[in-house]
Amino acid sequence: MAGGSNKNWILMVTARSPTNIAVIKYWGKRDETLILPINDSISVTLDPEHLCTTTTVAVSPKFEEDRMWLNKKEISLSGGRFQSCLREIRSRGTDFEDEEKGIFIKKEDWKKLHVHIDSFNNFPTAAGLASSAAGFACLVYSLAKLMNVKEDEGQLSAIARQGSGSACRSLYGGFVKWSMGNDANGSDSIAVQLATEAHWDELVIIIAVVSSRQKETSSTTGMRESVETSPLLHYRSKEVVPKRILQMEEAIRTRDFPSFAKLTCADSNQFHATCLDTSPPIFYMNDTSHRQVFCMEKWNRSEGTPQVAYTFDAGPNAVLIAKNRKVATQLLQRLLFYFPPSADTELDSYLIGDKSILKDAGIGTMEDVEALAPPPEIKDNIPSQKYAGDVSYFICTRPGRGPVVLGDEALALLHPETGLPK
Amino acid sequence: MAGGSNKNWILMVTARSPTNIAVIKYWGKRDETLILPINDSISVTLDPEHLCTTTTVAVSPKFEEDRMWLNKKEISLSGGRFQSCLREIRSRGTDFEDEEKGIFIKKEDWKKLHVHIDSFNNFPTAAGLASSAAGFACLVYSLAKLMNVKEDEGQLSAIARQGSGSACRSLYGGFVKWSMGNDANGSDSIAVQLATEAHWDELVIIIAVVSSRQKETSSTTGMRESVETSPLLHYRSKEVVPKRILQMEEAIRTRDFPSFAKLTCADSNQFHATCLDTSPPIFYMNDTSHRQVFCMEKWNRSEGTPQVAYTFDAGPNAVLIAKNRKVATQLLQRLLFYFPPSADTELDSYLIGDKSILKDAGIGTMEDVEALAPPPEIKDNIPSQKYAGDVSYFICTRPGRGPVVLGDEALALLHPETGLPK
Repeated sequence: MAGGSNKNWILMVTARSPTNIAVIKYWGKRDETLILPINDSISVTLDPEHLCTTTTVAVSPKFEEDRMWLNKKEISLSGGRFQSCLREIRSRGTDFEDEEKGIFIKKEDWKKLHVHIDSFNNFPTAAGLASSAAGFACLVYSLAKLMNVKEDEGQLSAIARQGSGSACRSLYGGFVKWSMGNDANGSDSIAVQLATEAHWDELVIIIAVVSSRQKETSSTTGMRESVETSPLLHYRSKEVVPKRILQMEEAIRTRDFPSFAKLTCADSNQFHATCLDTSPPIFYMNDTSHRQVFCMEKWNRSEGTPQVAYTFDAGPNAVLIAKNRKVATQLLQRLLFYFPPSADTELDSYLIGDKSILKDAGIGTMEDVEALAPPPEIKDNIPSQKYAGDVSYFICTRPGRGPVVLGDEALALLHPETGLPK
Repeated sequence: MAGGSNKNWILMVTARSPTNIAVIKYWGKRDETLILPINDSISVTLDPEHLCTTTTVAVSPKFEEDRMWLNKKEISLSGGRFQSCLREIRSRGTDFEDEEKGIFIKKEDWKKLHVHIDSFNNFPTAAGLASSAAGFACLVYSLAKLMNVKEDEGQLSAIARQGSGSACRSLYGGFVKWSMGNDANGSDSIAVQLATEAHWDELVIIIAVVSSRQKETSSTTGMRESVETSPLLHYRSKEVVPKRILQMEEAIRTRDFPSFAKLTCADSNQFHATCLDTSPPIFYMNDTSHRQVFCMEKWNRSEGTPQVAYTFDAGPNAVLIAKNRKVATQLLQRLLFYFPPSADTELDSYLIGDKSILKDAGIGTMEDVEALAPPPEIKDNIPSQKYAGDVSYFICTRPGRGPVVLGDEALALLHPETGLPK
């Protein structure tokens, strides 16, 4: 088997993958094991500079079992989703050699070598920011590079899909469509890139991470219950989404922000409508989410044409997509006006990601936040209500690139000699 | 014209009408002026002992114009909805005489005599408790009695419908269906009684009036926007509601509480789902509403079969329908446990309507409320959260009778000699 007489080597790859936010939503599976959806979906990949998963994968004859660490804690790999991804990648490994290090691996050896996996999110896992999408995309991508898999991103996306449906869309940067496909085995249920992040680089994205006391229904459970009980979901997937997919592809192709925004908002709302139509009903949006929608709708209406699109995943966090940088500074002013930090929060930790937006918005201190004028769309006679503390923090980001290998060994999460977390 | 030489008489009728709560919802008009709905609906009439409108209507040759007072304030009658009801009733008036008082009115005279109308709700008008349903039902019913109209309740319901859609269902007690009808002129869009209140008299209804800071979209505006923008609403009205109407009629006929509860909850949730699918989206339920749904779903699940149905109209108030009195006492205990009054509220004003339920639930003082044990369906290891002050007050009631004339002149709201509010 692998490596001749030298059994002491460790082969390692580190990669970084983005998360993504759907603008035409995925909700409902037609196959629970293969994770095949009931409709196409479209997403924007978020810049991994601000939100990403970094994963180091390693193989070595020394390793005695497959092991994984997530955010510094060892977790079990026994789940079917991990096993599917590992099996699929291992079966596609090809011959590899590194003469200098004395490593020779034949394609059939990948099934015998144990892997160590260390994964880290640069954002809170529990914050409802699609950490599993970035995570499984990164796992599959890094394993594929490690095992010298020759398949392209589309084929890898079908493997990542079996880890977490939306992970397939994180195999590309920019604007991505997940085609539901027709095959029973899922071979054509893959992601395709509609446009790179450079195609529409004016967009700015601000995420409001909303404080929530409620334990939310997991999206796996939620979508299963919706498929089983919501009459509206089936109508949506068959009759509404196919038209919206075509319209959204066109809006992205032509960088038509008003159409993009209208479709994005309508589809987010319709997804949450089908959650409400589920028995028992699922509520992901809370009063804070509702207020954010209300503010954006009011602003967009007052401008005569949409400035900002909003979309909510399976949780109360708002993802706000501004037409351009200028609009994003106005958006940030509005957000900080309505949702200032609670008294014990520093401004510096209240907006993370691309912090330069603060300067563009003329905000350097908490005094600047307090001095923000009410947005002009508020009528003078209505006292404006503020909701301090209802948002935990904001993240400013933009559309970004797909997965990349990090060549710098210093960035590896596993120790080059022990193969254990650094 | 009327009355011979004596011009000093006043002819007066006082009536009382119930409000109603839809269990299969009305949302969307196919004709805005005639108020013709896009689907059938079914409601339960609430006992007018606890929630009702009382209206006194009067005519006199002395009156110089049509005037109306609502809850002690004069309001304009110039709106199209009032005018439609007045015109329709006047055109159906018949000859009337009271020899003793020297009153002789020919049917053509009703159009020339001016009316005074005084109306009063025994519950807060702004609390989102369908005051316009009780109000227009009472207006039409009392005017019909005054003007000696011979039409039956079904025909009167078609007139009340032109004041406020759901008012047509308040012309009957018990369980009522509003058939959408087919005629363009609306003649067959009328209410019919499915069963009297005596048919299923075990049911107990508790309404949670929820505090809300948000100004809600009026149902007239809301349903117009839903009809114009929600793809899901059209599917609901055409494909979902017709089946549910048949199932609900059967559930009421056979007093099948599990089916009644499942349909009621599912249809309330689906109505709110179509509101969310509207552009801009409409949110009537808030975090408190969501928590009430959550508590009821949890309890129903733990019992294995539904104990309580919930339904929400165009606002955050929960209407909870308990299977019987015993369940209602358990419901009240749960409600007071999770949603105790705020510190400055008296128990006596926190539950109105049928207050005897408090005694049945073993609650006589605020100390009893504080001593309530957590419901058994809460797992021991999860600390139970309480939401003091999130409910303004509760109303305990039951299914009740339709409109009645109040013969006792002392109950009239207008002065018998001046025809002005007492």
